[in-house]
Amino acid sequence: MHFTAETSSNGVIERNFTLGEITGVLWSAASGTDGAPLILMGHSGGMHKRAPGILSRVHHYVTTCGFTVAAIDAPGHGDRPRNEQDQQWVAALQQARVAGEPIGPIVVEYNSSLAERAVPEWQATLDALQALPEIGAGTPIGYGGMTLGAATGLLLTSVEPRITAAAFGGVLVYEALIEAARRITIPVEFLVPWDDEVIGRDGGLALFDACASEEKALHAYPGRHHQVPGFEVDTSARFFARHLSRATVTPG
Amino acid sequence: MHFTAETSSNGVIERNFTLGEITGVLWSAASGTDGAPLILMGHSGGMHKRAPGILSRVHHYVTTCGFTVAAIDAPGHGDRPRNEQDQQWVAALQQARVAGEPIGPIVVEYNSSLAERAVPEWQATLDALQALPEIGAGTPIGYGGMTLGAATGLLLTSVEPRITAAAFGGVLVYEALIEAARRITIPVEFLVPWDDEVIGRDGGLALFDACASEEKALHAYPGRHHQVPGFEVDTSARFFARHLSRATVTPG
Repeated sequence: MHFTAETSSNGVIERNFTLGEITGVLWSAASGTDGAPLILMGHSGGMHKRAPGILSRVHHYVTTCGFTVAAIDAPGHGDRPRNEQDQQWVAALQQARVAGEPIGPIVVEYNSSLAERAVPEWQATLDALQALPEIGAGTPIGYGGMTLGAATGLLLTSVEPRITAAAFGGVLVYEALIEAARRITIPVEFLVPWDDEVIGRDGGLALFDACASEEKALHAYPGRHHQVPGFEVDTSARFFARHLSRATVTPG
Repeated sequence: MHFTAETSSNGVIERNFTLGEITGVLWSAASGTDGAPLILMGHSGGMHKRAPGILSRVHHYVTTCGFTVAAIDAPGHGDRPRNEQDQQWVAALQQARVAGEPIGPIVVEYNSSLAERAVPEWQATLDALQALPEIGAGTPIGYGGMTLGAATGLLLTSVEPRITAAAFGGVLVYEALIEAARRITIPVEFLVPWDDEVIGRDGGLALFDACASEEKALHAYPGRHHQVPGFEVDTSARFFARHLSRATVTPG
């Protein structure tokens, strides 16, 4: 893991890193990270490691909750070159949008491939992060992501015992995700956008139903997947604090 | 409104009251109630104004959130005599339970009648509470209730503009409740028990869908209606604080 840039503002240190082909960013508290839980954040489809949905949480997570946060670009996203097959999927998505045709089947095929490739990348990133002295092997780890980030996180969480709390939302569901949910037993929060015509609501309900966790919560909200209400962002922060913080942390 | 008994413990003053045939209880902070929002709590079917589901919230609501809380017995519940028709419904419920027959149709008929009768009683109680100098006309008012308390609250909230935030949960849904939900535009939280064979989950989803509120949230949890997770109790307290507290209140 190579750190390529470091900046600091408003109490948050931001460090870019590369790990082989992977490009990522690590946010941590300028005041120190002793005992801080690590939250892995998966960005949405078409976005990148500094997506608005991630940045909107980072400051609160780091400064109020005392978390360290890491995000990486999905294959072919952000700072990473897009391979030929991914270019074809992106072109097919654009064509379908222009033609007013349903994009669901293409999204499922494309996300499915991206999520499968991202799982070993997240695991390698986790190995490298835990090797940092300021994080360490014993750090409690959570995962949060919407859409593509949720598809990736469901697969990752179902095979990665280091993750002990996860929040997923707004994902177009396919069978492999339901199967992953059936293998998940850690505390999970599912966010379901109630009025998203691409994602639909039934998949989110089916995921929640399939998840094997004893502590699981489904939170539905009006609107589309990118319209997560501020109070749900706060509720997710409290969810992570409840399950990952070694000391009592009460985010505002 | 006549206060018939007063006790105080752990910072909470508890006062029994009667208002005509209505029997109720008012909990308030021993440290004073200046500007305190008033939360009306409707008990579940077969329970009463001191139901465990209410008592489990009262201390947190009063001492941590700074709310005043009021509960009244539903007609024929708690300290109130049961009329002949209600006795017949209760007998029919017991027979169905013993015979292993579905109780849903009887619950709907019985709750529907109870809820309709309880609405004017809550309105009279609200008039009387607002006439108390320690509450007053300008107090922000919320309503919370599960099962019968939710059925009553949905009807009440749909016709009572003094209620400006409400939380409903675990209710066996019938058409009049869907119609009431369509008329509700204040912030609402719906709790949906995911595995309650009597209540089912589809009714709760339909209620959420029908509700006309711009800010509405659906929270589902595993298990039956009386198994509300502690973190959802806390989330509801924060929901009321967010919408009703004039000063910034951050429950723990």
